[in-house]
Amino acid sequence: MQAYHALERRFARLSRLDGALGILGWDKEAVMPLGAAAERGEQIATLAVIRHELLTEPETEALLARAEQDAGGLDGWQAANLREMRRQHAHGAAVPADLVETASRAATACEVAWRQARADNDFVGLLPLLAEVLTTQRAVGEAKGTALGLSAYDALLDQYDPGMRQDFIDPVFARLRDGLPALIGEVLEHQAAMPAPLPLSGPFPIEAQRALGRRLMQAAGFDETRGRLDVSTHPFCGGATEDVRITTRYDEADFSSALMGVLHETGHALYEQGRPRAWLAQPVGQARGMTLHESQSLLIEMQACRGDAFLAYLAPLLRQAFGDDPAWAGENLRRHYRRVRPGLIRVDADEVTYPAHVLLRYALETAMIDGDLALRDLPAAFNDGLRTLLGVAVPDDRRGCLQDIHWPGGAWGYFPTYTLGAMTAAQFFQAANEAEPELEPSLARGDFAPLLGWLRRNVHGRGSRAETQTVIEDATGRPLDAGIYQAYLRRRYLGDRLAA
Amino acid sequence: MQAYHALERRFARLSRLDGALGILGWDKEAVMPLGAAAERGEQIATLAVIRHELLTEPETEALLARAEQDAGGLDGWQAANLREMRRQHAHGAAVPADLVETASRAATACEVAWRQARADNDFVGLLPLLAEVLTTQRAVGEAKGTALGLSAYDALLDQYDPGMRQDFIDPVFARLRDGLPALIGEVLEHQAAMPAPLPLSGPFPIEAQRALGRRLMQAAGFDETRGRLDVSTHPFCGGATEDVRITTRYDEADFSSALMGVLHETGHALYEQGRPRAWLAQPVGQARGMTLHESQSLLIEMQACRGDAFLAYLAPLLRQAFGDDPAWAGENLRRHYRRVRPGLIRVDADEVTYPAHVLLRYALETAMIDGDLALRDLPAAFNDGLRTLLGVAVPDDRRGCLQDIHWPGGAWGYFPTYTLGAMTAAQFFQAANEAEPELEPSLARGDFAPLLGWLRRNVHGRGSRAETQTVIEDATGRPLDAGIYQAYLRRRYLGDRLAA
Repeated sequence: MQAYHALERRFARLSRLDGALGILGWDKEAVMPLGAAAERGEQIATLAVIRHELLTEPETEALLARAEQDAGGLDGWQAANLREMRRQHAHGAAVPADLVETASRAATACEVAWRQARADNDFVGLLPLLAEVLTTQRAVGEAKGTALGLSAYDALLDQYDPGMRQDFIDPVFARLRDGLPALIGEVLEHQAAMPAPLPLSGPFPIEAQRALGRRLMQAAGFDETRGRLDVSTHPFCGGATEDVRITTRYDEADFSSALMGVLHETGHALYEQGRPRAWLAQPVGQARGMTLHESQSLLIEMQACRGDAFLAYLAPLLRQAFGDDPAWAGENLRRHYRRVRPGLIRVDADEVTYPAHVLLRYALETAMIDGDLALRDLPAAFNDGLRTLLGVAVPDDRRGCLQDIHWPGGAWGYFPTYTLGAMTAAQFFQAANEAEPELEPSLARGDFAPLLGWLRRNVHGRGSRAETQTVIEDATGRPLDAGIYQAYLRRRYLGDRLAA
Repeated sequence: MQAYHALERRFARLSRLDGALGILGWDKEAVMPLGAAAERGEQIATLAVIRHELLTEPETEALLARAEQDAGGLDGWQAANLREMRRQHAHGAAVPADLVETASRAATACEVAWRQARADNDFVGLLPLLAEVLTTQRAVGEAKGTALGLSAYDALLDQYDPGMRQDFIDPVFARLRDGLPALIGEVLEHQAAMPAPLPLSGPFPIEAQRALGRRLMQAAGFDETRGRLDVSTHPFCGGATEDVRITTRYDEADFSSALMGVLHETGHALYEQGRPRAWLAQPVGQARGMTLHESQSLLIEMQACRGDAFLAYLAPLLRQAFGDDPAWAGENLRRHYRRVRPGLIRVDADEVTYPAHVLLRYALETAMIDGDLALRDLPAAFNDGLRTLLGVAVPDDRRGCLQDIHWPGGAWGYFPTYTLGAMTAAQFFQAANEAEPELEPSLARGDFAPLLGWLRRNVHGRGSRAETQTVIEDATGRPLDAGIYQAYLRRRYLGDRLAA
């Protein structure tokens, strides 16, 4: 047990470094003056290097080996904690220091160049730097794959979603893909037969938006003694243990993006604030991975807050905040929040067409990592894919394969977690409703307690003790199932047709 | 040179850790939610321990020894940098790890207890914990003194003001003390013969206070691309290299404390923003110490901004910000900002009586460290001293020797820098005016450029290359001189009598 306890102290130190990095990162986006950027980069790099050294120094490996030999006396949480320590160490130690640096530099350089290349619609100009990112990411995936006994892509995926595997994703996504074009067609046809929603016309004073956002995040269960809401250009959920920082951005002409954005980030924050309290500073106490994290934000935003019950609660609050308007009528609000329109840009996509963007990127990035798709053929493959899946023609790479930061920024293996999260959210919400009959009536009163209680017990409080797939099965009684998600989309987007 | 360059890399890393600590500290005071306090304590302690380990590990000593042997090729800045590295290392390495921890725990425990003891006026109850702080601070001073070849008190002082010594302070303070009671008497007599100033009556809207504060700090030269102004309970100047964070607190009934507070912190910030750019991440690029730091805040607040020229510029801005009021008349404003009233509380003291509070604390803390004054005799000695120096009777320890955080918090050796700074400010301002005839007329237009240019050349840009005393002599042509400060006080507080 001595080696295990020494590891707990060591990983607690890593956790405090992560907390410091989280606050420095929040500060950078939310309040830092521009002239401090270079120096902040040095501070963050210094802490990251110290963190990496502490994780990978020989003493850590020696302690892990001794603790694993002597694991008989560990209880369930401790054993899972030791497993997660080993996983983090394997990820850190697998990659030689010079490859860590080369990969990091390649991504930084390409991300900077990408901002300009996107503006200039210049894929060819970006190609050399993007090729360097792909080469180094593949090398990182291969190095980690060797250490973890995984394929290169699975090893990259494992960074964002420990335990998630291509073998698991492929059949789930295949089923989703099979039904998607037909579903989109049906929804569009149905929508075309209905009157268009009345516009929600502003201006919507920012102070009123902020107050309403805070009221709703508090209603959802966000604990403001252990977190904050602020403003940044790109909204996110970050910060540190016991100090969860979420951000949004306000637009006087459109209250809706900030409001739903706050609720989305609140979903992430509830996960962070609900992690198991006895294990907050340990690997096993961390959130499980990006699929479950995204499931929590989408569960709050999409499942709960765009549902009929919550919109009925929201309508009078909107009237109170922004003045009377026929647009606040429940029927109109529902139509507004469920508008479907196939488009070019992933981040602007609605819930029905969003999966198409992710299925495409997942297919492309796995092929590129495996060497089955050459980078120079990416634009054509991207444009073909979007036409097939969504029926839209991509006019230029700016609005095509250059639109996202993930590939130039080195986040290969991240994309599938968006849609895995959306599917998981639907499956969780259905199970929670079955388990808690008071859940929907409570949401109609702005009371999230039954929902939050179910999430605390079934997701948040489990930390990283079980794998993502196990958490889903335990909570819902079955594996992740594309059919549940498809049925949910049909209910929400075609439900009034069926009822009519 | 190889060892020296390795040291530069090592100290740059320490500088980035300091930057991270600075931002975490700012965040703690300005935005952190309350429930994050314990975890933030862990983050700060973790970075501080890592910093200490990096500074004192054997490799640092080995590099220092090699660099010192091979110092022939170093230029002036590099040689001074190596000297400052050695000084920082000596401070860090002199104290055994267990004493560092005991001293830190004693101060933390006593500071917490002090808040209650002050409220309860219970010096006797605090005595055991305060004795532990004194014992550990003396031990720290002795350990550092042995390493640095200094007395215990000089070693403590050297932590806050490198190179400052009791032998230097004693005659300067003795001269100040000799003239002080008589000066205070004269000023009070003179003031009694004048009409009392009209009150500056609010309310003063906080938004208008903030806008005016920002305007003035920008006028003074604060670079907002490399710093910010925020709100905290206890105003301070902190943050990181290239990211100087100053804070204030607003009171609707009194604009004056926030406004002068912002100008005071701006003085500190200008020093930080003016450090030598090529050496920002190195010891020689740091601000020299607390005497020069305090000289910069007091030079801006007291010398420049409470002077006739700046007040003439300020009056119409106050009218514009807060509406017309006869109190804004220049004559009245001057009287308001130069009100002298002997009192019990150091932080509320005016410029004329403030030195008395410091002279007393300096005499008492040197005696306590040397063992010439027992802690149990402190209240009587404190009360005697304040009666002798200021003619005020201390009614209870709450408003006597328990009023300040420094002793319970373990900051022994800090007090003298306040008055050394005030004296230095007066001497600098006089020299700057002699060198820059445009300085005063410029201030009357809100233009700080001539003053700031002089400060950049003579103080800020020198970093830690020279000792405090050398900086003062080089800039003003003579050593620190209590007579200059006394003459300044006479001019400002009795000047209109002389003119009459």
